[in-house]
Amino acid sequence: MNHAMVRYLIGWMLGVESLFLLLPALTALIYREDVVLAYVGVAALCMALAALFCHKKPTNTRFYAREGFVTVALCWIVLALTGALPFMLSGEIPFVVDALFETISGFTTTGATILSDVEALSHASLLWRSVTHWVGGMGVLVFMLIVLPLAGGQTIHLMRAESPGPSVSKLSPHLRDTAMILYAIYLGMTILETILLLFGGMPLFDALCTSMATAGTGGFGIWNTSIAHYNSYYLQAVVTVFMILFGINFSVYFLLLTQRFKAAFRIEEVRVYLGVILASSVVIALNVRHLFPSLLDSLHHAAFQVASIITTTGFSTVDFNQWPALSKAILVLLMFIGACAGSTGGGMKCSRILLMCKSIRKEMQFLIHPRAVRVNKIDGRRVPHEVMRSVNVFMIAYLLLFILSVLLLSITNEELITNFTAVAATLNNVGPGLELVGPAANFGFFSPLSKIVLMFDMLAGRLEVFPMLLLFAPGTWKREK
Amino acid sequence: MNHAMVRYLIGWMLGVESLFLLLPALTALIYREDVVLAYVGVAALCMALAALFCHKKPTNTRFYAREGFVTVALCWIVLALTGALPFMLSGEIPFVVDALFETISGFTTTGATILSDVEALSHASLLWRSVTHWVGGMGVLVFMLIVLPLAGGQTIHLMRAESPGPSVSKLSPHLRDTAMILYAIYLGMTILETILLLFGGMPLFDALCTSMATAGTGGFGIWNTSIAHYNSYYLQAVVTVFMILFGINFSVYFLLLTQRFKAAFRIEEVRVYLGVILASSVVIALNVRHLFPSLLDSLHHAAFQVASIITTTGFSTVDFNQWPALSKAILVLLMFIGACAGSTGGGMKCSRILLMCKSIRKEMQFLIHPRAVRVNKIDGRRVPHEVMRSVNVFMIAYLLLFILSVLLLSITNEELITNFTAVAATLNNVGPGLELVGPAANFGFFSPLSKIVLMFDMLAGRLEVFPMLLLFAPGTWKREK
Repeated sequence: MNHAMVRYLIGWMLGVESLFLLLPALTALIYREDVVLAYVGVAALCMALAALFCHKKPTNTRFYAREGFVTVALCWIVLALTGALPFMLSGEIPFVVDALFETISGFTTTGATILSDVEALSHASLLWRSVTHWVGGMGVLVFMLIVLPLAGGQTIHLMRAESPGPSVSKLSPHLRDTAMILYAIYLGMTILETILLLFGGMPLFDALCTSMATAGTGGFGIWNTSIAHYNSYYLQAVVTVFMILFGINFSVYFLLLTQRFKAAFRIEEVRVYLGVILASSVVIALNVRHLFPSLLDSLHHAAFQVASIITTTGFSTVDFNQWPALSKAILVLLMFIGACAGSTGGGMKCSRILLMCKSIRKEMQFLIHPRAVRVNKIDGRRVPHEVMRSVNVFMIAYLLLFILSVLLLSITNEELITNFTAVAATLNNVGPGLELVGPAANFGFFSPLSKIVLMFDMLAGRLEVFPMLLLFAPGTWKREK
Repeated sequence: MNHAMVRYLIGWMLGVESLFLLLPALTALIYREDVVLAYVGVAALCMALAALFCHKKPTNTRFYAREGFVTVALCWIVLALTGALPFMLSGEIPFVVDALFETISGFTTTGATILSDVEALSHASLLWRSVTHWVGGMGVLVFMLIVLPLAGGQTIHLMRAESPGPSVSKLSPHLRDTAMILYAIYLGMTILETILLLFGGMPLFDALCTSMATAGTGGFGIWNTSIAHYNSYYLQAVVTVFMILFGINFSVYFLLLTQRFKAAFRIEEVRVYLGVILASSVVIALNVRHLFPSLLDSLHHAAFQVASIITTTGFSTVDFNQWPALSKAILVLLMFIGACAGSTGGGMKCSRILLMCKSIRKEMQFLIHPRAVRVNKIDGRRVPHEVMRSVNVFMIAYLLLFILSVLLLSITNEELITNFTAVAATLNNVGPGLELVGPAANFGFFSPLSKIVLMFDMLAGRLEVFPMLLLFAPGTWKREK
């Protein structure tokens, strides 16, 4: 393990974080809120730590997959620890476990809150929660790669460890350019959503917060009733469309921008993703028809909830915990499917589900014709054996972590559906679950033990399990001879 | 597809079934029950069908994996259709869906019942339910292999398709001998349990039924309160021990009988299986301590329930649906883990879970040292790539079937935990679940659609998914050119 290099990169990450902390500080100034000191102070602290960590440039720049995974995991933990400080210093979330939960929920784009009354927060803190979604969605290290020039071998390991999905698509031979293109598309789409929301009469502050939370597929609302607060079909429809758009593999936008339309529409994962959204929305709309005055209303709310859950955003316009069993079961299933790889969404990712289904078809063909040679293909290209293996291992690790978490939650909480969906909602970075953690409820009542388990799950879900697991493997920490 | 060969084998299976049907017929004679006609009639029908199907010996004996899977799936369906007839003819279970459910639950060793009052059944039918467990546990085709001499290539495909676990262990170079050894051990252990139960004062009829249901890890009780009826710690302890014994890979007994003790104790799967039983029993005993007068009572009932669920038997001595969340969550987890491969138990099997855990460890070692060559080993031997692949594909197919079934159940039943555990209890061939399908309840209230889904799950669980899936693949039915 190259400790010097890991320290150096954590330092740079803290520098980036201090810049982002200036946004809520500015907001506090505008709204003349006392919390300005908390945000400015923590920004200064991060900058000081950054200077301390980056003071000595490491001479040994050897950097392998192991370093990449550990750096990403540690960066995210440091991010959570420092990002929670303003909540505690301002007294808005005084308890350390709660403040950490809220911050991790923000950065991992989960959107599960421990607050029963978010409207009591200052504007600065509301904005900070949305900023954490925005940075966490595309990745703080991916952002750092834009400002910090590193050799190619190092960057790919960082990017691989932080980006969701079974493989990283390079949009350009230089990863720095890839990072820049991704963030440019990301920023552009966020601004577009903000403009469309303003156009529908949403106040600027609300539009900014909502757009950032949509972009990161986060789901923190700034009103207690989430998006139901905006009693406008236009605004809700804009959010629906943008949730779906941010759940699409960003390669698609790059292909569209570079006018490779054919390649863009050939991506199987995106077709599966949109197909699942369409099918689920129709089935749920029919299933909840009796709860709404018209089929159009029913379809509107079904589509919003489906888009919110499959992209793992977690906004809500209705309390779907009151919906019939079939609709609830579909929504829980969508939590696990998740969005596309290479998007800001969580879950297992459509591409993994697609590969798994293809492997079943291949097995059946093998059983029927044992001597026929079959290969798994996606988008017309052969899927390498390593990718299939990593998909399988990922799913196994995911399931084991899921099961272990449900067992740990069951120690202090008696309600099985709550435990099951609380883990599903955090491991998949969704936000709301069912019963006691339904859209109208919050995570505040959990015991500290349960909250720690759920925090681990949120990080493991966002970083796709292995970076977090590697922290506990003794072999990880050995120095290279 | 070699249709003639499939027909021929189904014929032989019907012949075997007619012999087993004579057991309840004899019971009816002894107890002077009217149902004797139903059992004798169906036995005669099976024999007639057998004669019809086996009349012409097939000339083409080509028999591949595909034929093996299809034969096994079709045999089990025919087994269910004919086995349900006595229940309907006698009027004890008049409705066809219910009679089929009960029969499939029997043969697949699930033990889920649609009857609210089993004590109302005739002795003959109670015995028939236990006989279905006994035959289904070790496998009706494995039994057929003893009486029907087939070429080696054909037998291995049949045995592979019917025997649970990722691979078949050959106890002898001749598969016919393997089948004979397995049934000899099976019969011996069943008789031993019967004797021990008689010794504790259980009536002969009860002892026979209980032993057969334990041996097949089935779980049909002959009293409404299952094993709680026998208010004797000795009898319950005997059943506990034998449930655990029947969940062990039968290779162990063969190794012990041939005095290869070292090899017997080296089998990792068995050590994992016993370790899980021990750990779960202790944790649950502590968790339910307050419900019992002493720690010993608590341990006794915890061990019984753990053994019953992990071996997928499904007997109960208490209503564990009333237990705390942690205990219930552990029991649901045990349903999925299941017993050892090569035993009569269901579930995913300990060996598969073990292989999955090993693949995670291997992946982490690979991430830490990408250039080190690692192989998955079990019992000191390298696990072939094909076995790992089949384990992964099995788990994916299992999960997809699980999810689809829960969704289908949710259409007509509103209770999510009931739907989830009903599928878990049938797909894993356990029997009781939680809430509306808890140990004190039954499956009678489900809609016909749900019952059909659950019947499919029981068959898919017992035959490990692929034989049932292949029935729906168009390629399966093509004739060879």
